[in-house]
Amino acid sequence: MTRDEIPTPALLLDLDRFQRNLERMTAHVRRTGKAIRPHAKTHKCPEIARRQIQAGALGVACAKLGEAEVMAAAGIRGLLITTEIVPPSSIARLVRLVAEAPDTMIVVDHAENVTAVGAAASAAGVVVNVLVDVDMGNRRTGAQPGEPALALARAVARQRSLRLRGLQGYAGHCAHVVGWKARREASLATMAGLMETRQRLERDGLPVEVVAGGSTGTYDIDVELAGLTELQSGSYCVMDLEYRKIGGRDGDALTNFEMALTVLTTVVSVPTADRAVVDGGLKAFSTDKPFPPESVERPGLTYGFAGDEHGRLTITDPSRAPRLGERIEFFPPHCDPTINLYDRMYVMRGDRVDAVWTIAARGRSD
Amino acid sequence: MTRDEIPTPALLLDLDRFQRNLERMTAHVRRTGKAIRPHAKTHKCPEIARRQIQAGALGVACAKLGEAEVMAAAGIRGLLITTEIVPPSSIARLVRLVAEAPDTMIVVDHAENVTAVGAAASAAGVVVNVLVDVDMGNRRTGAQPGEPALALARAVARQRSLRLRGLQGYAGHCAHVVGWKARREASLATMAGLMETRQRLERDGLPVEVVAGGSTGTYDIDVELAGLTELQSGSYCVMDLEYRKIGGRDGDALTNFEMALTVLTTVVSVPTADRAVVDGGLKAFSTDKPFPPESVERPGLTYGFAGDEHGRLTITDPSRAPRLGERIEFFPPHCDPTINLYDRMYVMRGDRVDAVWTIAARGRSD
Repeated sequence: MTRDEIPTPALLLDLDRFQRNLERMTAHVRRTGKAIRPHAKTHKCPEIARRQIQAGALGVACAKLGEAEVMAAAGIRGLLITTEIVPPSSIARLVRLVAEAPDTMIVVDHAENVTAVGAAASAAGVVVNVLVDVDMGNRRTGAQPGEPALALARAVARQRSLRLRGLQGYAGHCAHVVGWKARREASLATMAGLMETRQRLERDGLPVEVVAGGSTGTYDIDVELAGLTELQSGSYCVMDLEYRKIGGRDGDALTNFEMALTVLTTVVSVPTADRAVVDGGLKAFSTDKPFPPESVERPGLTYGFAGDEHGRLTITDPSRAPRLGERIEFFPPHCDPTINLYDRMYVMRGDRVDAVWTIAARGRSD
Repeated sequence: MTRDEIPTPALLLDLDRFQRNLERMTAHVRRTGKAIRPHAKTHKCPEIARRQIQAGALGVACAKLGEAEVMAAAGIRGLLITTEIVPPSSIARLVRLVAEAPDTMIVVDHAENVTAVGAAASAAGVVVNVLVDVDMGNRRTGAQPGEPALALARAVARQRSLRLRGLQGYAGHCAHVVGWKARREASLATMAGLMETRQRLERDGLPVEVVAGGSTGTYDIDVELAGLTELQSGSYCVMDLEYRKIGGRDGDALTNFEMALTVLTTVVSVPTADRAVVDGGLKAFSTDKPFPPESVERPGLTYGFAGDEHGRLTITDPSRAPRLGERIEFFPPHCDPTINLYDRMYVMRGDRVDAVWTIAARGRSD
């Protein structure tokens, strides 16, 4: 199959760029003495998880239990579920998952939840590996750093069916700070609270063999922290417009990783001289960022959303007006929610479809 | 299964509200002497399509061929595909679909496409039913009203393997005009071009037995047009916050249809006194509108997006602070892209799950 035969809109992955991204991250964590457990919420694709592990990752992080269930069923191990698991029916599912994949780790941020998971694990005769989730000023989940996190770690350690492994601190609000120096300052200031919490646990004689955190934006910043053991970066493997905008250490773009993910569309209407319409709209691209998709090496037009299934191209160079049926590829604004719209990705080598990978955990945010 | 056992985030449909919406639309089109072919791009669910047809609909409209393929495979007939079908591989799929479901209608807005579809249909020995898509100032697809649309209709009529059935004119930009009077003025002014085009075709002796258009916003406006034969309204069956905001004929809200669609979430973190976190974020709700989800009968909090899998609840009434594990339901901002995130909907009668319907055409925008 070639690019021209793919039904559109379709998600495309440039295999060579993707593989180079994996290799660069592997070299980076080896050089800095850290590990990586990349976030699979980005791609939801067992084949990508397998390749990340082949490239040296410890396993993958999953945002939700449903995602982890899909990964486990595909044979992926070394799972870390990064959101608290609270409903009784979900805790029952977790215990079944841990029976199948015993090295799975979860996070907790509330004593009630520690008791509930501990009781379920004990009843099922399994031991659940646990990190204490620490709020890094992200204003989302997590116990407050310092004394509250320490108290929770003690509560975990007291449960015989829970095994305290360490800490998680995700500073998501630092990931997209524009400019490397400003981002470094923001992340190191924030992550200091995680390091200080680590020391408290150590002084208390509690185990902290795992301290997980970091994003694609801070992948070459958080490794400066002696107390951090593993990165959770996810987007680096495919990249997106938002990450491209933040700027890398040595220049204006996050050039260390390549833009490997695109959405292929077809021009289905050329109604007027100044306008063309492609068949990719709100259901083909993420819409949570305040900027639109950008075409890949196709000057002479700009994209605007025009409904669920349509994108409106404004023709800025009439000499390059799109023709009916032309295929146009766009970089998505935000990779995670874009991938989550598709059941499969076409893995490309140039214009040839090399493979089709199933996004098996798509929609599994439960 | 009860509401408390559903894995979250999950899409819920209130069955009684949904059925009343169908009945109201049936009564409305009967009273006004029109027909309805509801847009299935809203729900992508064959079971809903079946119920709409049972309630009197002619069939369903589909935004794209992929959606229509799923509906046809589920036994749904009376399909209208409302976006132009342009790539050769898609035209080949269309011809196979028409062999299976011969009453399927498509739209065209370009002479090149008329020739291509005509040739493929002729080679396959099928006849394809065609509407000319007319641009209603929506700045999307469609031939310009008047002479250009007439010329295209003639081109369709000249093809022996195409059967001209009439016109489509979708004025999407009128659907959400706030205030019924302003909306009526906008829609009738716009749709006048479609009526004038209809007269041109009639004077030319061309068939116009079908003239399709209208949204949920204009369902009780466009029926005033003598030359319109059928409505394409889609959202009316489930509704959403955006449509609730526009105001109906007799008051401040589009009260004729009920809010039947919600997203169920769970409180997974209560980290501070002024904040709680639910497990529904960018992957649980549409994000294309400038307003957030709103809770259903749960005062004391407001929702803000906090990433792919998280929603941040700001507690506005401390006496009603959410408890860990509490289930909270939200109305989505925009129904179509919200439904497109889920593989199934839980069909509810009160707190009981009455059925689970598969959103079989989810992601099929190809």
